[in-house]
Amino acid sequence: MALADITDPARPYTRRSFTALFLEGRARLAQGFADAGLTTRIDTAGNLIGRIEGRKPALGVIAVGSHSDTVPSGGRFDGIAGVATGLEIARALRDSGTWLDHTLEIIDFLAEEPSEYGLSCVGSRGMTGLLDGKMLDLVEPGGETLRDALRRVGGDPDGLERARRSDISAFLELHIEQGIVLESQSLDIGVVSSIVGIRRIEIIFEGEADHAGTTPLHLRHDALVAAAATVGTVRCIAKELDGEGSDYFVATVGILSVEPSASNIVPGRCRLVIDARTTDPVLTTRFVEALDRETAAAAKAARVQRAAFKTLSDGPPVACDPDLQRALRDAAHDLGLGQADLPSGAGHDAAFMSRICRSAMVFVPCRGGKSHAPEEWAEKDAIAAGAAVILQAVKVLDRSLQEIPSV
Amino acid sequence: MALADITDPARPYTRRSFTALFLEGRARLAQGFADAGLTTRIDTAGNLIGRIEGRKPALGVIAVGSHSDTVPSGGRFDGIAGVATGLEIARALRDSGTWLDHTLEIIDFLAEEPSEYGLSCVGSRGMTGLLDGKMLDLVEPGGETLRDALRRVGGDPDGLERARRSDISAFLELHIEQGIVLESQSLDIGVVSSIVGIRRIEIIFEGEADHAGTTPLHLRHDALVAAAATVGTVRCIAKELDGEGSDYFVATVGILSVEPSASNIVPGRCRLVIDARTTDPVLTTRFVEALDRETAAAAKAARVQRAAFKTLSDGPPVACDPDLQRALRDAAHDLGLGQADLPSGAGHDAAFMSRICRSAMVFVPCRGGKSHAPEEWAEKDAIAAGAAVILQAVKVLDRSLQEIPSV
Repeated sequence: MALADITDPARPYTRRSFTALFLEGRARLAQGFADAGLTTRIDTAGNLIGRIEGRKPALGVIAVGSHSDTVPSGGRFDGIAGVATGLEIARALRDSGTWLDHTLEIIDFLAEEPSEYGLSCVGSRGMTGLLDGKMLDLVEPGGETLRDALRRVGGDPDGLERARRSDISAFLELHIEQGIVLESQSLDIGVVSSIVGIRRIEIIFEGEADHAGTTPLHLRHDALVAAAATVGTVRCIAKELDGEGSDYFVATVGILSVEPSASNIVPGRCRLVIDARTTDPVLTTRFVEALDRETAAAAKAARVQRAAFKTLSDGPPVACDPDLQRALRDAAHDLGLGQADLPSGAGHDAAFMSRICRSAMVFVPCRGGKSHAPEEWAEKDAIAAGAAVILQAVKVLDRSLQEIPSV
Repeated sequence: MALADITDPARPYTRRSFTALFLEGRARLAQGFADAGLTTRIDTAGNLIGRIEGRKPALGVIAVGSHSDTVPSGGRFDGIAGVATGLEIARALRDSGTWLDHTLEIIDFLAEEPSEYGLSCVGSRGMTGLLDGKMLDLVEPGGETLRDALRRVGGDPDGLERARRSDISAFLELHIEQGIVLESQSLDIGVVSSIVGIRRIEIIFEGEADHAGTTPLHLRHDALVAAAATVGTVRCIAKELDGEGSDYFVATVGILSVEPSASNIVPGRCRLVIDARTTDPVLTTRFVEALDRETAAAAKAARVQRAAFKTLSDGPPVACDPDLQRALRDAAHDLGLGQADLPSGAGHDAAFMSRICRSAMVFVPCRGGKSHAPEEWAEKDAIAAGAAVILQAVKVLDRSLQEIPSV
């Protein structure tokens, strides 16, 4: 709640990655980490990390975390609830005089939400060796590269190999569900079984910016006519694929920009970003094939060029670690909490972390399933229950995990 | 061409009304007016006016002009060619030692293009008594009112009645055609018969900004789905009305904005601005009725609210003055130029001026009919021919117009 005050006042709750507000939030967090006795640093990928050395450092690290950045007009819980959980676990261990064999790290991953540079999960990509030079060359509308932005927030784009980790034994992330399954079934805990794969596609239509008064309809090259048809097409294909069987499929046009954007000029250029998610990669392939075919036809019908049809990012679906899931289920059971196994329709840093270590997630209920919106809400007790499950699992895993498996 | 250099370098040729660049262009123009021996002032409606007193001031004013502002990424001729024509006529009269009976005014009307305040023809509305308090309250995205902006460019929003004119006998405007009729028929001069009426309508759809990964398709309230359907509907109704008969009809969605505009959020709000133009007001009425019906249905189908369906502006079609048209036709004939009568698909300051005085327009050809785009082009000789026609007509009208008719 204290971090929620650090928001763009015109669009609560907005704390976009790489902004002054984001850095203000991080300074507050770093102070909290230090007050809890954690050694605090920023790694070369821009992740804020608090650390307590374990009694047997050779066993490696158990990490707990999430992210503190938000989408525009986002919520007060998406991300930060998971970082606060990590901090609370560190405090609880200190207050109870518990010293783990494993080193404990609390991580605030950099820029989990899609940033102004067109990339999400910047920090967890960096920690898992998946932040490459081409991504660092991405530019935000103001002209700054991600490379320079990373330097600005305390990272080191030239030393990213130092952020890549091979010493993490397990990663656990708490997150609000962002759906209505737990709430509708009055459950306390969702143990995440798998995380959807996310494909992001950019389409650009280029027509001609003609005078809206003097250009007859049949002579127009209106980029927005093709873009609008694409919005309908995306909805239509997605409905079809989702309706086919038991696998989850959604697709969204969240960005559609028009140039030059004047009431008396025929749109000369439109850019769309399409987000498609599924637990079955075959559905993604079929979606992209149909979208390719339909948007080529839409461009032709509107007499415009389809100047780009480009994959911006492509993360495959990820299954959570079975041993960690079991530890979380047992903990929830021991604490007397109602629970269910759930897939995650949202992407999370845990999906990247699963590339380098055992990873799993706990979902807690949020009101009406609302997320990425100002009205996003989770009860304090609901988050506390999730944190208690993770704390209990950390204690169990501290004893049971005796080697760092190569993933 | 000298004014074309005064542009936003990132988006040639952009000299938006009320900006520093616009004021820089006006300073250059005012210097040109003064150098040509014109007494220069800015009226309370923000119009830049150069004046040479006539030998018989009681006969009133013959005015020639257009505007110096541009659309975003606009052209080098739309508007300014008509102001430069006025300046050249003043110079030609001075150089030939001709002193008119009528007072001559050269006018650079303020903000003819739709401004950031959502209003076009600010200066000619002001000069004709049609700039009201509600319009002055309009606000640009940065928060400034049109009232304050008008003051900033040298106008006086509290003294607008002083801008309202009853002493103008005739108004003549040269403009590039912004169409391909003259070019395709190898004609030099278009004598404008009538100017289309323009209706601008704002539609806002409000849905819910849900998470694009966790919100199933059937539970969404996606504002962009309704907005995209509207783009298709506008094209469809316009085609039907234009195909019916001899009257001109076009409609355009030039603005479509999406909020919050993030790839992973279902659009919660969309705003569209629709521009419909015709020489027959009955077609506008039928268009609006159909649009109202279809967008209400689109909102329902997408499970969103149609939060606004609002007329932003509504200018009726205007016929040009027959006597002035005749003077222009005669002049073109005497100068041996090829000519045709044409309707204007674009709105112009002349449409407002026709409320207070006889008004008419000359069109000159422009390459490929392109306008409101950087590639807009008109040959120097083509503009000179149009200016010669207006100069000749001014001389004839100076003798024939013996009283200011009440319009």
